[in-house]
Amino acid sequence: MTQTETLNLTFAALADPTRRAILGRLSSGNASVNELAAPFKMSLPAISKHLKVLERSGLITRGRRAQWRPCRLKARPMKEAMDWLDHYRRFWEESFDRLDVYLQQLQAKEKPQKKKRHGKSKK
Amino acid sequence: MTQTETLNLTFAALADPTRRAILGRLSSGNASVNELAAPFKMSLPAISKHLKVLERSGLITRGRRAQWRPCRLKARPMKEAMDWLDHYRRFWEESFDRLDVYLQQLQAKEKPQKKKRHGKSKK
Repeated sequence: MTQTETLNLTFAALADPTRRAILGRLSSGNASVNELAAPFKMSLPAISKHLKVLERSGLITRGRRAQWRPCRLKARPMKEAMDWLDHYRRFWEESFDRLDVYLQQLQAKEKPQKKKRHGKSKK
Repeated sequence: MTQTETLNLTFAALADPTRRAILGRLSSGNASVNELAAPFKMSLPAISKHLKVLERSGLITRGRRAQWRPCRLKARPMKEAMDWLDHYRRFWEESFDRLDVYLQQLQAKEKPQKKKRHGKSKK
């Protein structure tokens, strides 16, 4: 799978709240389809469909035993998603920086006004 | 927007390679729809559709001037996505740890064999 395909499938898989909840459940241990379906008011076929999406994206693997095929979390594709997002880190960090600068400017503006009103500034 | 909605829309928006490429382009500066469309062999309406998805997810904002509505990257929803993914960090780090343990076990197995074969171990 190319990196582009991995990102396409991973982000698409993570876009659904049920699939994210399934991954959350699997983070505390492997589980069968029945166990995964229990907390959701969903039919087994509906859960199975979600599991297929997760399996295709490489976010879970399933055991091979016919009756009890436990699902297991595979976090590796999440790392690729995170590495991609990490390139944009400076943009959200910059927004905070800009907010800081703005707040400092507001405070700087406020100080001379206080000076005017009270005739002297508190240091 | 709830955190669940933010994650749904952000991951869905990021699941498309054209949309990721548009965000990449915007990371080097604001751009108009025409400028964004240029590198893609896509019609303006197709690009506009992608921009609408990005705008709805809060990943871009658009200027209000009717003729030239520059798009601007807003990375904030990406931070939410990254924070969500970060909960799974230990799982991909653990896989590496397990690989480390496995390699150490292999090496540990190898050493006594060498000892046997050569009669003495190198320290």
